[in-house]
Amino acid sequence: MAQLGMHTWNELCSQPQAWSDALSVLHQRFAELRQHKALTHASHIIWSGCGSPYYLAVAMSRLQQQRSDIPVTVLPASEIWNNPAASIPRTGTPTLVLLSRSGSTTEVLKAAAQFRTCSPHGCIITVSCYADRPLAQLGDINIVLPSGQEQSIAQTRAFSVLHVGALAVLWALIGSDLHELDGIPAVGAAVIAKYQQHCVAIGANPAYDQFFFLGSGYRYGLACEDSLKMKEMSLTVSEPFHHMEFRHGPQSMVNPKTLVVGVGSRLTNPQEEAVLKDMRTLGGHTLSIGPNESSDMQWDATLPEECNGLIALPLLQSIAYSRATSRGLDPDNPHNLNAVVVL
Amino acid sequence: MAQLGMHTWNELCSQPQAWSDALSVLHQRFAELRQHKALTHASHIIWSGCGSPYYLAVAMSRLQQQRSDIPVTVLPASEIWNNPAASIPRTGTPTLVLLSRSGSTTEVLKAAAQFRTCSPHGCIITVSCYADRPLAQLGDINIVLPSGQEQSIAQTRAFSVLHVGALAVLWALIGSDLHELDGIPAVGAAVIAKYQQHCVAIGANPAYDQFFFLGSGYRYGLACEDSLKMKEMSLTVSEPFHHMEFRHGPQSMVNPKTLVVGVGSRLTNPQEEAVLKDMRTLGGHTLSIGPNESSDMQWDATLPEECNGLIALPLLQSIAYSRATSRGLDPDNPHNLNAVVVL
Repeated sequence: MAQLGMHTWNELCSQPQAWSDALSVLHQRFAELRQHKALTHASHIIWSGCGSPYYLAVAMSRLQQQRSDIPVTVLPASEIWNNPAASIPRTGTPTLVLLSRSGSTTEVLKAAAQFRTCSPHGCIITVSCYADRPLAQLGDINIVLPSGQEQSIAQTRAFSVLHVGALAVLWALIGSDLHELDGIPAVGAAVIAKYQQHCVAIGANPAYDQFFFLGSGYRYGLACEDSLKMKEMSLTVSEPFHHMEFRHGPQSMVNPKTLVVGVGSRLTNPQEEAVLKDMRTLGGHTLSIGPNESSDMQWDATLPEECNGLIALPLLQSIAYSRATSRGLDPDNPHNLNAVVVL
Repeated sequence: MAQLGMHTWNELCSQPQAWSDALSVLHQRFAELRQHKALTHASHIIWSGCGSPYYLAVAMSRLQQQRSDIPVTVLPASEIWNNPAASIPRTGTPTLVLLSRSGSTTEVLKAAAQFRTCSPHGCIITVSCYADRPLAQLGDINIVLPSGQEQSIAQTRAFSVLHVGALAVLWALIGSDLHELDGIPAVGAAVIAKYQQHCVAIGANPAYDQFFFLGSGYRYGLACEDSLKMKEMSLTVSEPFHHMEFRHGPQSMVNPKTLVVGVGSRLTNPQEEAVLKDMRTLGGHTLSIGPNESSDMQWDATLPEECNGLIALPLLQSIAYSRATSRGLDPDNPHNLNAVVVL
């Protein structure tokens, strides 16, 4: 029998190289991005996608709030085409950023069409992985990152490559130097080398039966993605929350079979550690990942703060992968799912 | 032995009267709200709270997008005080709307203080239930709705009363007539009379072991609250999603023990029905609630569309209550929780 989830495992492990390849493309496109009216004249930016790329949009919208004064909205693509009046600003020159692995997802294509109808002076930026798919023709700027292509149904490499692409869009918007991101692949590779086996052991530990993923700030969007990976690959009960929100109700679910995973930030580390400590007091287990010395899985805080959730992704994907295979499930063939939702 | 969850049950059933009492207060305050610079001069509105009121903020931010051109942000209170630079607009005259049952939650008070420091020209509107608690002194306008007060730890009546209050803030912002909401209590009472026993039976049905709550538009925020009720009262696996997002990964979890609950809207009913049908095809069970003839639990579409998630709340709270008591849990005393999170 072939190894369970071989495609997923290979794609998962190849991410640092894929990020490096994406950065090469992005350096070539960066001057164009910075000078395009889609960013220089945007009165409002809407981040959107479906599924995993929607969670990336959630993350990026928060990063934009952190770094820019331009009003920001984040919505699943379905909300845009189902209810454009509630989604697309009626005034100004809004820019819609559409994120998609396949570039073929019906709802993303419908959102693009709806935006064109409702906002004739607005712009669209697309970030996807296949040059020959419809979405890559629909934007005023189309960023294509082929190193994110993958065989798997559950996104791993595609999601993180789209993340690198979205960061470049943000870096262009705020006028920062894209070379600030050049260290991502090396840090990512080092962190995988150091901690992936530990993550495989955590995933295979039958003592856990429910997982919560906590992330403050932009990391909340990534916590949503981490949680989705646990569902898709391993059919495990999992849910994301903002760190501090977890005390306001959801902690009712904590018991000795719970693992609460916190993806930390330097800015808010003491508060995040306090939440995890409280969950241990309630009988749960915790795992902290991030650029803080107190984290269980830690790396040097040399990258921009906005990259640390990205660095954590392969580790958390490895937990989901390992939990799936240890339960005899095939991460390459998730229950009930297809690679692209076509309506 | 006293009836399990007596306070919760009484508060849950008393909601239409509490809404009526809240509307009386709101009619008295409405002219002041409409004329206050917090709404007439708001360059940006931030909706915030913790726990259940945060989910209300999520819902209200989407309603604002639907009805107003003013830029909108929604954040848990913790994100504001932990990272004000990423949360509070640096320019203009933003208004922060803080929602809280107790008016004592530390993080909400800290968010108010942080906002005052960062935005000296901004305004704060508070909506809470106790006149003598700190929050009710901190706003430029303080709306106090005592009919939302409750003994229970898990919010039921307080949440829906705050919802009525938040709708009044929105109605003042968009210049609509508050009398449009006067029909809410009567429709709510009729719907409870017609369907509550059916909901009690659903909650007591041991065939279900995981619940998903779907809501498009503003109903997504309410789906989050419905899901939290299942956790807090009955320690049940439950999670909220936008209707169309559920296909993009989360449907992997659907199996014959799953109940997928959709709170519907008139605008997007065919798409929502299609998602529920797909979930039945995958072996799950579904329940649709809303103002559509095709809904399993249906009411006349006489209220503004923006009220239909509110009308559904007591029904979904009844499912959570019934599931708790049928499992021998006391909804008045949720696992691991206190009424107010004080740091």
